[in-house]
Amino acid sequence: METLQQIQHFFNKGYIDYRPGLSIDCAIFGYHDGELKLLLCKNKVITKWCLPGGFVKRAENLDEAAARVTAERTGLDNLFLKQFKTFGNPGRTSSPGLLDEDKFNELLGFKIEPDSWLLAETVSVGFYAITDIVNAQPKPDFVSSECAWFSIDSLPELGFDHGEMVKAAISSMWIDLYHFPIGKNLLQPKFTLKEIKLLYEVLSGKKLNATNFPNKLMALGLLTKLDEKRSIGGHRSPTYYKFDEPTYEKALEEGLVLV
Amino acid sequence: METLQQIQHFFNKGYIDYRPGLSIDCAIFGYHDGELKLLLCKNKVITKWCLPGGFVKRAENLDEAAARVTAERTGLDNLFLKQFKTFGNPGRTSSPGLLDEDKFNELLGFKIEPDSWLLAETVSVGFYAITDIVNAQPKPDFVSSECAWFSIDSLPELGFDHGEMVKAAISSMWIDLYHFPIGKNLLQPKFTLKEIKLLYEVLSGKKLNATNFPNKLMALGLLTKLDEKRSIGGHRSPTYYKFDEPTYEKALEEGLVLV
Repeated sequence: METLQQIQHFFNKGYIDYRPGLSIDCAIFGYHDGELKLLLCKNKVITKWCLPGGFVKRAENLDEAAARVTAERTGLDNLFLKQFKTFGNPGRTSSPGLLDEDKFNELLGFKIEPDSWLLAETVSVGFYAITDIVNAQPKPDFVSSECAWFSIDSLPELGFDHGEMVKAAISSMWIDLYHFPIGKNLLQPKFTLKEIKLLYEVLSGKKLNATNFPNKLMALGLLTKLDEKRSIGGHRSPTYYKFDEPTYEKALEEGLVLV
Repeated sequence: METLQQIQHFFNKGYIDYRPGLSIDCAIFGYHDGELKLLLCKNKVITKWCLPGGFVKRAENLDEAAARVTAERTGLDNLFLKQFKTFGNPGRTSSPGLLDEDKFNELLGFKIEPDSWLLAETVSVGFYAITDIVNAQPKPDFVSSECAWFSIDSLPELGFDHGEMVKAAISSMWIDLYHFPIGKNLLQPKFTLKEIKLLYEVLSGKKLNATNFPNKLMALGLLTKLDEKRSIGGHRSPTYYKFDEPTYEKALEEGLVLV
């Protein structure tokens, strides 16, 4: 946890290390056992739930900033982060009354300079990632009172323009499902066709055909059938599959068409 | 054309109206008769070809900035512009020697203040659009010596990180072809199946099946068959089609899956 002195330095002199007016926000989706959730942090100043985010350091690129912020918030440092859209409406962070200086001062215990770089209009680059909830350890930053997972179907009202960001992240993810492989950190190393179908159904919000869908994945060379079955007894034991590593990595790089 | 006084004001006091450190760049693709080109402007200061772009005004959002810049550069004000990626690597506009103050001064005929807001590190939001070349009237701005269309297969070396931007714009466009309708301003109001197939082939760089591809468009309800043929004589005269307006507009809004 940061000391008061560190926080004070960040508020008043942070522009030395950080780029004023440029932030990233991350929609971190959490998948587990057929459920999709979203990680939100409750902002102390505007007292609303927000996507975890932060300012971009002068020395880092946008991908590095997104990786740093998600690592700080989730403890995970190997997420596949994808930039989806940038948000820059006038007033999105600087509308009168949105960031209350007095409230800042009260919460932090020191006075923010009225021309603090943190109060300036900010453009934010949106990233999303999908992780297994059990791997993540949500951790609030100093402007957040708590972090929590919310079911994607019952999100609270979000602060700033983060509601719009989440919609855009979900639309992007739906399209990306057709063009990039997914599942490596969300399924066990060996999985059944039913499990990967469930993953895609939950992420896309669509029912998939039990025969056509795995056939498409097989046709793309993404899956390797193992000579091993899950032992649930009898002839109904489902066969295990695994991802074909080289094909998966190549598709992540070059894209694919899941048709 | 801007007066010297206006240009001088922009360089030294432009931050009053514009947001320092935030620009947009536009990959404007031009389609005509089976050829795909890209609009580039030759930057006088770095003497390289670049995407047309500009700073974002404080009063406008990112989409409005992109529409303004493309209207200024092409004379077209109804383009379907799509944000594809934001570029923010450290040094992308502020590497030592990249923007030569002396050269600026020489070209412009006045002295730029060394701490001019224009020399600061800038993050750029990339947009792309596709237009019919015959509709556009390329027009250089005051930092450009000329604007020209280049075949997508033989682009010159681009300045800044614009080469990377073009690659990303093309990748995005290829994916978007599967999820958004296209063609309304690129084909005549009545067109043949051969013409729309050629459009998709040129945009995607892929050969398409002469039967399956139109069938997919028909299945999506995007095309309406007209009771009219192009008269090229005899029984080989191809039938005309047009877009189904409501379906097209809905798909533009909600997305589709061209599979």
